[in-house]
Parts: sequence; C-alpha cells; structure tokens
Amino acid sequence: MNEKKTALIISAHSADFVWRCGGAIALHQKLGYEVTIACLSYGERGESAKLWKQENMTLEKVKTERRKEAEAAAQALNAHDIRFFDFGDYPLEINTDGKYQIVDLIRDTQPNFMMSHSKWDPYNTDHMYATEVAIQCRMIAQAWGHNPGEKVLSAPQLYLFEPHQSEQMDWKPDLFLDISEVWDEKKAAIECMQGQEHLWKFYENLAENRANHFRRNSGGQAGGKNCRYAEGFQSLYPRCVESL
Amino acid sequence: MNEKKTALIISAHSADFVWRCGGAIALHQKLGYEVTIACLSYGERGESAKLWKQENMTLEKVKTERRKEAEAAAQALNAHDIRFFDFGDYPLEINTDGKYQIVDLIRDTQPNFMMSHSKWDPYNTDHMYATEVAIQCRMIAQAWGHNPGEKVLSAPQLYLFEPHQSEQMDWKPDLFLDISEVWDEKKAAIECMQGQEHLWKFYENLAENRANHFRRNSGGQAGGKNCRYAEGFQSLYPRCVESL
Amino acid sequence: MNEKKTALIISAHSADFVWRCGGAIALHQKLGYEVTIACLSYGERGESAKLWKQENMTLEKVKTERRKEAEAAAQALNAHDIRFFDFGDYPLEINTDGKYQIVDLIRDTQPNFMMSHSKWDPYNTDHMYATEVAIQCRMIAQAWGHNPGEKVLSAPQLYLFEPHQSEQMDWKPDLFLDISEVWDEKKAAIECMQGQEHLWKFYENLAENRANHFRRNSGGQAGGKNCRYAEGFQSLYPRCVESL
Amino acid sequence: MNEKKTALIISAHSADFVWRCGGAIALHQKLGYEVTIACLSYGERGESAKLWKQENMTLEKVKTERRKEAEAAAQALNAHDIRFFDFGDYPLEINTDGKYQIVDLIRDTQPNFMMSHSKWDPYNTDHMYATEVAIQCRMIAQAWGHNPGEKVLSAPQLYLFEPHQSEQMDWKPDLFLDISEVWDEKKAAIECMQGQEHLWKFYENLAENRANHFRRNSGGQAGGKNCRYAEGFQSLYPRCVESL
Amino acid sequence: MNEKKTALIISAHSADFVWRCGGAIALHQKLGYEVTIACLSYGERGESAKLWKQENMTLEKVKTERRKEAEAAAQALNAHDIRFFDFGDYPLEINTDGKYQIVDLIRDTQPNFMMSHSKWDPYNTDHMYATEVAIQCRMIAQAWGHNPGEKVLSAPQLYLFEPHQSEQMDWKPDLFLDISEVWDEKKAAIECMQGQEHLWKFYENLAENRANHFRRNSGGQAGGKNCRYAEGFQSLYPRCVESL
Amino acid sequence: MNEKKTALIISAHSADFVWRCGGAIALHQKLGYEVTIACLSYGERGESAKLWKQENMTLEKVKTERRKEAEAAAQALNAHDIRFFDFGDYPLEINTDGKYQIVDLIRDTQPNFMMSHSKWDPYNTDHMYATEVAIQCRMIAQAWGHNPGEKVLSAPQLYLFEPHQSEQMDWKPDLFLDISEVWDEKKAAIECMQGQEHLWKFYENLAENRANHFRRNSGGQAGGKNCRYAEGFQSLYPRCVESL
Repeated sequence: MNEKKTALIISAHSADFVWRCGGAIALHQKLGYEVTIACLSYGERGESAKLWKQENMTLEKVKTERRKEAEAAAQALNAHDIRFFDFGDYPLEINTDGKYQIVDLIRDTQPNFMMSHSKWDPYNTDHMYATEVAIQCRMIAQAWGHNPGEKVLSAPQLYLFEPHQSEQMDWKPDLFLDISEVWDEKKAAIECMQGQEHLWKFYENLAENRANHFRRNSGGQAGGKNCRYAEGFQSLYPRCVESL
Repeated sequence: MNEKKTALIISAHSADFVWRCGGAIALHQKLGYEVTIACLSYGERGESAKLWKQENMTLEKVKTERRKEAEAAAQALNAHDIRFFDFGDYPLEINTDGKYQIVDLIRDTQPNFMMSHSKWDPYNTDHMYATEVAIQCRMIAQAWGHNPGEKVLSAPQLYLFEPHQSEQMDWKPDLFLDISEVWDEKKAAIECMQGQEHLWKFYENLAENRANHFRRNSGGQAGGKNCRYAEGFQSLYPRCVESL
Repeated sequence: MNEKKTALIISAHSADFVWRCGGAIALHQKLGYEVTIACLSYGERGESAKLWKQENMTLEKVKTERRKEAEAAAQALNAHDIRFFDFGDYPLEINTDGKYQIVDLIRDTQPNFMMSHSKWDPYNTDHMYATEVAIQCRMIAQAWGHNPGEKVLSAPQLYLFEPHQSEQMDWKPDLFLDISEVWDEKKAAIECMQGQEHLWKFYENLAENRANHFRRNSGGQAGGKNCRYAEGFQSLYPRCVESL
Repeated sequence: MNEKKTALIISAHSADFVWRCGGAIALHQKLGYEVTIACLSYGERGESAKLWKQENMTLEKVKTERRKEAEAAAQALNAHDIRFFDFGDYPLEINTDGKYQIVDLIRDTQPNFMMSHSKWDPYNTDHMYATEVAIQCRMIAQAWGHNPGEKVLSAPQLYLFEPHQSEQMDWKPDLFLDISEVWDEKKAAIECMQGQEHLWKFYENLAENRANHFRRNSGGQAGGKNCRYAEGFQSLYPRCVESL
Repeated sequence: MNEKKTALIISAHSADFVWRCGGAIALHQKLGYEVTIACLSYGERGESAKLWKQENMTLEKVKTERRKEAEAAAQALNAHDIRFFDFGDYPLEINTDGKYQIVDLIRDTQPNFMMSHSKWDPYNTDHMYATEVAIQCRMIAQAWGHNPGEKVLSAPQLYLFEPHQSEQMDWKPDLFLDISEVWDEKKAAIECMQGQEHLWKFYENLAENRANHFRRNSGGQAGGKNCRYAEGFQSLYPRCVESL
Repeated sequence: MNEKKTALIISAHSADFVWRCGGAIALHQKLGYEVTIACLSYGERGESAKLWKQENMTLEKVKTERRKEAEAAAQALNAHDIRFFDFGDYPLEINTDGKYQIVDLIRDTQPNFMMSHSKWDPYNTDHMYATEVAIQCRMIAQAWGHNPGEKVLSAPQLYLFEPHQSEQMDWKPDLFLDISEVWDEKKAAIECMQGQEHLWKFYENLAENRANHFRRNSGGQAGGKNCRYAEGFQSLYPRCVESL
C-alpha cells in the first residue's frame, strides 16, 4: 500500500468523468488522494455536436477545445493529473501497444481504486469498450511477467460509475457516496462543459435524487445523515472486510 | 443509533446460523456487538434425520435436542441472546401474529445489521420464506403507524448469508469477512451439531476457500492480508458512504 | 372493445398513483379515457409518518386524512373515479373475497390498460404484493367460469410504473410517456401530498430527467420532440401491432 | 430405488399434462415406467370457456366433462394412474392439509422424476403456484420427521415442462426428448381435448419445431438422429453423473 | 424525418432476412416504406451445405448462387434495394473501413427503424457480431464529427428479429407483428431458399404459432383480431410515446 | 460418430485444465476416450509469479518450465495428447490464422464433447476470450465451406468447467461428475503444479464439497451414491435424449 493514496479514473471520452464521478474525484482529492484521470479520447467526433455546428471546424480544433474544457473541469475538481491518450472515438479502438500504455499508467499510479463505465451500453459502444479494456489492463498490470521487475498491481476495486439511463445499461448501484461538501466543485466542473449545457440541470437533479436514496438507505424517516448530493456506483468485485 | 451496537440473525431452522454466519456472530461479539439469534423453528421435522432414526423418538424430544445444540453453539460463539419461535418447519408458516412477534424483536434490538438466507432456494423453501418474512418485518418495524409510540427501526443492511450450493440459489457474494481470529469459536460451534457431523468438513473447506477469495480480492499476489478463514455475504441494499 | 376508453390503476397505498403515474392519468383523462384509481390501502400505518408524529392521532384519523389527500390529488388530475378498499397496510393482505372485489372492478371497468407496481421491491413488500394480486385478478377476470354470464376481460397491457430507486427493484423502462402538457396537473396533485413534501422536488427532478431520456430516444441531438416532462413504464406483456 | 420405475406429473389444471408432456408420459409408459398424473384442479372456471358458453352449464357439469376428457387423454397415453385433487382454479389455492395429500402421493409413488410448470407465468398464476407447491412438497417428502416411519423421498429431478409462450415465462430448455415413436399417442390425447381444438395445430407445430432443435443439437447437417417430434424441458436441479 | 419512410435490415448472411423478418419487409413495402436489406456476407462457407455437397463447387459459384436466391427472395417481398457487402463468413469479420461503409448506408437511408439479430447466439457467432456492429455503426452515424456536413442519424429503434431456438439466445419478444396479409409473399420468398427446404415448414409453423400469441395477447378468448401469421421482435431501446 | 470416443479441452493457459477438469480427463481416459488438451498459451506472463520472482528469469525459461509442468500433469492424468499453441497471454490474442489452427484440431479430433472456461470472468479476460474463440471455432468447424472436402464437425456439447470464484463468473453448474475413482490421478496432476502450491488445498476442498453436492442431488439423506470427490460443469447447449 502506498503512503499516498491514489485513484485512477478511466474515461472513454474527455468529458465523461465530470458528470459521472466529478464528486468522487473532488472528495477524494480533499481527503488527500492523488486522483489521476485518463481520457482515452476527446469525444471529438461523437460528443462535440455543438462545435461541429460551427463553421470551418476541424478535427484538431475540436480536440483542442475538448482538451481545454476537460483540463478546466479537472482543475475545478482540484485534480492535477489528467492524461489524454487520443485513441480516437466513434469507434474507440485500442491496439496492444495502446493497452500497454494504460498498463504503464496503472502501475505508475498504483491506484487504491479505479473507476470506469457500465458493462453494457447499447447507446455508446465506446463506453462498454473502455470498461472492457480497463478490466483487461488491470489484469495485465497484475502479471509478474509483464515487464518483469516493475512493481505489480494489487487488487483495487473497479467502481462502475453511473451511466446515462441506468436501467438500459443493466447498471445497479450498490454504493452511494455523499458529495454534499464538494457539490460546488462538481457544479463548477459541470459548467466547464459549455457544449453540453442541456445536461447541467439533468445531473444536478440526479445528484439530488441520489441523495434521497442515500438518506433512504442510511436511516430513512428515523434519522440518517442530511446528505444533499450524492453519486452512485456499482462495485465490480466483492469487498473484503474485517468488520461489517 | 444505539450506544451499544447490535445485530440480528434470522435463522429458518435452529442450526442454520452456525454454518452460515457463525464467524460473523463470534467476531462481532468480540467487537462489542450484542448479537441476537432468532430461530424461527427447530428444524425438527426436516433437519433432524439422525434423531428420527433413533427408536421412540417424538417431536418434543427432537425439539429439545435441537434447542440444546443451538444453545451450546450460541455459547461457543459467545452469543448470549438466542430466541426460539417454534413456528414449525417443512413447511415453515408464519401468520400475522407471528410476524408481529418478529417485528417486536427487531424493534427491541434495533439492529445495526440483520442477516438471513438467500432469496431463492429450490431445495428448501423454508429458507427463502424466512428471508421473505425478514424483509417484510423489517418494513413493518419501520412503520410509524405500527404500535405508535414505539421507537421505529432505521434502515439496517440485510446481509444474505451463504447457502448450501450457492450457485443454485442465485446467490453472489459482494463481501467477504475475515473470521480467522474467531475460527476456533466457529469450529467449536460447528462441533455442537452432533447430528450433522457429515457437514463439519464441508464448512471448514468452505471457510478456507473463501479466505482464498479474500486474499485474491484484497491484494492478490502483490500482498494483501493473510486471511485464513472467511465468510461471504450478499448485501440486499446499497451502502451509503462518506469515503470509498 | 368499449366505446369509451378506460384505464385502471392499482395502487398499494393511497398516494402511490400520484408520484408514479399521475401524468399518465391526467393525460389519458384529457384524451377522453375514463381512468379508475383503486387504492388497496390508505398507507395508514407505513406511509403516514408525519401524521403519526402529531398528538392524539388514531388509525381512523390517519385514514381520513390520507383519503382526503388522495381524493384531492385525483381531482387535480381530473380523475373522477377513485375507490378505496381499505385492506390494511404493512402488511397489505388480501383474502379470496378481497380478490373477487378487485375482479369485479376490473370487469366493470373493462380497462384498455392497467397499471401497477414493479415485480420486486425489497423496501416495500406491499408494492410487489399489489402487482402479484393485480396479475392474479386480471387472470380471474378473464375466466369464463368466474361468475358465468358476466362479460369477461380481454387482454389489457399491465404497465409497471416507476418505483422509488428503480435499479433496486429490477425495473427497466421500455416506454417513456411525454407528460409535458399535463405537468401542471401532476404538480398540483403532488402538492396535495402535504405529508410528503420532502418528495416533491424528487419527482419533479425525475420527470425532467425522464424527459431527457425521451428526447435522447426519440431523436437525440439530431432532432426529436421537445419533451420537458416524462414518465417511464415497463410493459409486462408483449405488444401486438399491425405496423411498426 | 424401486424395482419399478415411476414418474409423477403435477398439473395445475386437468388438461395441462396433455399439451406439455404427453409425449414424455407415453414414452416412459412404453419404457416400463408407471407414470402418475396429479391434476390439482379441473381448470373448471378458467380453462373451460367452450363449456361455459353452453346453456344451463354448472360448475359440477364442467368438472365432470373436464374429468372425462383428462381420463380419456391419459388412456390415450397408456397412463393408468390419474388423480384429481379438486383444489379449485382461478385461483388455485392449497392449504396445509392439501399439501400433505400431495406429499402422501409423492411418497407413495417414489418417483424417479417429477414434472411441473415453469417458475414464472404472468398469464396464469395457477401455473407458477403449482410449481411452488411441487417444490415445497418434494422438500416435505424428504423430511424424516414428517410422518416418521414412512419411507422418505430421495432427490428426483423436477423437470419444468414447456409453457405457452416460453420466452414470456423465463423458461429455457436444457433438454429435448425425442417423442417420435409415441407421437400418435400424444396426438390422440390432444384430440381428446374437444374444448380446445384451436390449440391442436399449435402443439403439433411446436413438436415438429422442437424436433428441428433436437436434430440441430444432436448432429446438425453432419448427421444426427431423424427425430420428427420432440418435447423440451428445463431441469430445476443439476445432474449427477459418472460419465459425460 | 424523411417524407418517405424507410427501414434498414442488417443480415449477417444473405438468407437470414427471409426467415426472420420477411413478413415485416413485405408489409412495410406495402405500407409505403422503402426497405433496404444489407447482407454482410453470402453465408457462403457456413450456410450453403447443400451447394458444397455438389461436385466441382467453388467459393465464387456458391456466392453467385446465394446472391441469386437472396435477390429472388427480396423481389418476392417487393423489396427493391438489396446490398451485398461480401465481408466473408464463419467468421464474419469487419474492419474499420467496412464499418464506415455500413455507416454510409445508414446515413443514406436514414431508416425509421433498423433490424438485426439477437444479442447472444452460441450457435452462430456471426449473428451476434452483426448486431454488435449494427449498434456500433448506428452510434457512429449519430456522430456530428463523422464526415462532418453529412446529415446525422436520428434515434431509430433496433428490432432484434427472432433467432432459431429463441430461448438459447436470451431473446424475448416484446412485440408481435401481424403479417397475415403478406404471408403469400413471405412464403414465396422462403421458397426461393432452395438449399434450405428442410426449414420451410419450420418457419410456416412458427408464423402460425406466433399468430396464436398475437391473438392471445390482443384479446384472447374474449375477442381480438383474427391474425393468422405473425412475427415476433425484441426492441433494444425503450419507446417514447404520447399516449399509451 | 467415431469408433473411438474423443474429447477436446481448450485451456487458456497451460495449467487451467488441471484444476478445472483434471478429474473429467482422467476418468474419460479410463473409460476409453482419447482426450486432447489444447493449451492456447503457457500462462507465461500472468500465471507464473513464482518463476518470475527467481533471478535471471526469461520468457523462454518460463515457457519451458510451464510446458514441463503441463506435460507432467497430463501424464499423471493418463492423457497422451497435449498441444501448445503459444498464442501469448495477458492478453491472449488469436488472429484468423490462429483460429483456423484450432478449427483444424477440432476437425482432426472430432470430439464427442468439448470443454472450456466460463462465459464471464472479470479477473481474467483471457479465460472468457478462450471460450469465445472455442464457440467460434466450433461453428467454423461445422461449416461445409471451410476447407471443403474435410469431414465437418457434428454438434458436441461445450461444457464450461468451474472457474475460480464461481459466483463472480455467473457460472452455475447443471452437472456434477463423480471423480472419486480418479482422485489420486487428479491429485498427482495438481502436485505437478509446483508454482501454485497455495492452491492445492483449495481444489481438494472444492472437490470434496462438490461431492457433497453430488450426494445431495443424487439421493440425499435417503441414499445416493457414496461420491467422495466431484467436479461441476455448466452445459452451454441443451441435451437431446431418448429417455429421461
């Protein structure tokens, strides 16, 4: 276990991390974690409609804009380590060398936990592909025979963050995280997403409603913590505990 | 929340708690919890084959023997509060008054967590019925209009303990508990089950193998805690946390 | 098929219909349907915490208050036919005679569609029990030998309306209904629920977010209808159509 | 294990066994099994529409007709042991005494295998209830403390026979049985069902198509047995074998 | 939305569309749709056993025969737009350029709905791969940054047509389509499949039985439309409606 | 069907077959089968931690050691035909030519049954990939147009052998195989795995406990065969039988 606690977020497109786990990022930065955000693509082709509607737009300009937004959002969340892999989107495709770059990052950061997308997403195959790669690279990072001599990875949890339209994605949260105290940071990060203003309200609503679920599950009418904003996660692996 | 931490185990037959969560009981007693064990029946008809093979056996004698065994096992686990409801077994059937008795117990103990059987069990319908009743009584205990004036229940987790033949029961653990330090107590409790000696080895094997899963999930080849015995549980409700 | 179109909502407790399908009710009243709302209980014990916290409260007073709220909400939705069965709640229990009363109502109304709760609900067993009974009574109403001579029921769809915490209930919508034009009515109905003010915002948020899903599924960034509020439903039976 | 091989079919209504496992019954009679058919009800209210459309029909007349049909069908299948429990239908409801009658039958016949309906059926709750009871009674029959001194049941497979609209019932066959050589008997049994002539063709079609699945799974284009009629079954319990 | 309504069928092998959705094709042509059929391969290696059993057969001859059959079948269905991609079969493998060709077709046709195979098929991995590609290409066609300036795709439904052995494929229909009035066309198309005569009866049986399901679900014994032939479909995405 | 019975085991890494189906291999060799074991990789990078901890280790040395171990284990099981494909591990990646080599092996051996890994494995993506390839190659081997003139494959069952942590893999056994009489051989094979001594006890425990399940399912307390060691399997395809 590292002295410094770390976390690694694997985001298919450059904005995904903001909506889906911005609160978790800001909270853990505040708790002393070093959170690394890996953007596998910029979402330059498939998630930049507003930019493409402008005249004289080019792929490079879109990437530059998307990168700026993502960097600003990361800063709003007090996350200082954001990486851009530029593997392309719609479709996202990663060859063996690309996977080894992700393995290197996993080993460098030795994350206490990882996060990525839901296992199924018929609206966006890049999302489920990112998780497939995350699972595979986590496995390679655990292999003693991959770049022998390097420190191998332990067994960090992989949290699947909340997709858009959770039920269509066969996603079911088993964990709610209270993000009330970093809501302002998450909101600021969301507002960096100038191209997707139509989603700002959606994710504020969602955070409020997940807080209701937090209250309902943590004490209900009989008490419970006054959580105002929350995020939900699905754990891919079982937990190992010494006390319930 | 009580000053004293409490837990409530709902066991369809009088021996179920030993095999399925004896470690969790002993460990939490050691951690300062008051654990209450509710035996809905003695398993007198369906789980006492060895006794019935003796001559001149009667239902009352079987119940007496089963009760003694269960009390001895509870004592071996350092659990001092075991209740017998005697609702009958094969089939277990509980009417509204019976349910209200369970609700009373839930409210009296105000458990920090509850435990019961898997949701599906085609080998033993008493097991899944016990869980159905546990869920229903937990709900009634939360109702302000049930015996108004009494303290209502908060929202404790309901852990589903491991059934026999986990896969046939659609049971999937999301939590492993290290019970190494109370293994001797669990083993002693198991050995109180004179009528089911053929299962002693089975559950020792299982605890060793679940410990392997604990090690695999908590650090794998790269380290992790040296857990030697473990129990697995499936959480029925999501967790609400302030930090991952 | 009737000249007049009809629908039947089966609600475990007297307020459930408001949050879960108030929009569908108001919309279909506007479209010329006669919508009947059947409240199997008042939710008098389990869903009236605010009333029970008042002094000198009795079961009868709670029922009276809950009935008034439900009637006001139905009126806000322009629904003129609301029935109260008073079968009791926490737990809701219906004997054979009670089921026959529901069958009578189904046959009298000959609904073009029915609505009830999700199939699974570990938070509230009354909800899943209401659906179990709805399925059973729909079947009895189809039987030629039940009260021979009466008009038997055809095969109306049973829509499962959205539960609280959809993923925990294994509920997955296959249909979104645009309720924008009756949102004011639904909001007014919601505000009749004086005892549950803490949920008003929750369900407004939810309606806005389901509208996002409506837009996403009906045309996405490329167009689609400007739906502002929506409700989701899961169909229990397949549809039979003459054109896609 | 008995010298004589036996099987027990548990049929919610008196005609169910014909369509769903008539081939299996006739085949096993031919193979030397004694097959017992238990009809829990006559389907007198819910599955006798044609009779109820006649004038001056009464419940007793319907039962008499349905019984005659079922007896004729059993005879056509060369099954000589058919029992009628008359528990009522739509809904089928069985109390503890009724369950004990079924347990008695199970113990008397000591079946090598049992058959009943699918686990889920939103069109016909009697069907899934029959299976629920079959599982429970099989368990009671295994209990040494139920009527001590009687021979307890071993662990026979429970095959779930094919429902109408298999996919809606979450039914998936893991076994196809070649019934070509007894097709004439099954057809004759089907034609005893004068009240449901509209289904004759349906089940002939189905048997032909399941035979296609048999051929596909047993050798495909490369060979395989020339099966012309088949029935599908889903096993509730795993098999225990000494060779694959 | 186009003036002219359109539909796009994505068929892994050249004959798949006939058996699985020939009725839907013919019916929608009759209703004024322009239906485009995309055959990703000829099924030349894996689904042409009868041809390969002839002497001196070559891959090119097989493709030519299969193409003729498919063209004749399309004509029988009154479908005038059938495309052949020749990506190869057993296994079907499509690289990024191939996917872009499919995207081009999707954008050109702007379909009101799409159709493809079930999500799982352990008998034929080409089938599930075709659907995987269909979902991915639908997504790319929606991306503003893919060939900027082209008209992007809206959000058409993707219907999964009925596989062979539906239960083995985890396929569950939520929609039945009455194809009675185009049955003669579908039958004529089926009879173009000279190499698979052993399946003609199978799919006639299936259409009759799905019609039974149509009648059962649309009114049952109490009435309903006299549908004689039907096809079943599973919707991948939820519907968005303005009235139930 | 061959005169000689054959079986084909597809093992992602060179040791997998020992733990997961060593008993099935030894038993079927004893029964006169010719069992072929195909090791797709040596597990040289990901499953050889103990070797990599030695000084001056190289990839070739690891492969050599792993191959020796696997050959010794096969010999202990009396299996004389073990093939090594050396496709690489962590990740295992097989191109079209590699798949054709596997198809050749399937056609050469014409197996009566095949075995491979579970369909899902979030700990080890090589495992689920091996099964994906096994399903695909089985399909290609059935194609008359793949290497026309060769003998095509019939329709052998594909048994999924037991993974580590069965519930996490969505694996559910439908078949238990009694391996008591070859346990000594399996134990000897296990002890060839010098690098994984920490798993010896685990799999002995598992075999004992699966034997308990065998006894429970084959007769329970009332009798049943005295099975002492067993292996569990999940069948991918339904069985086709002539008698139950």
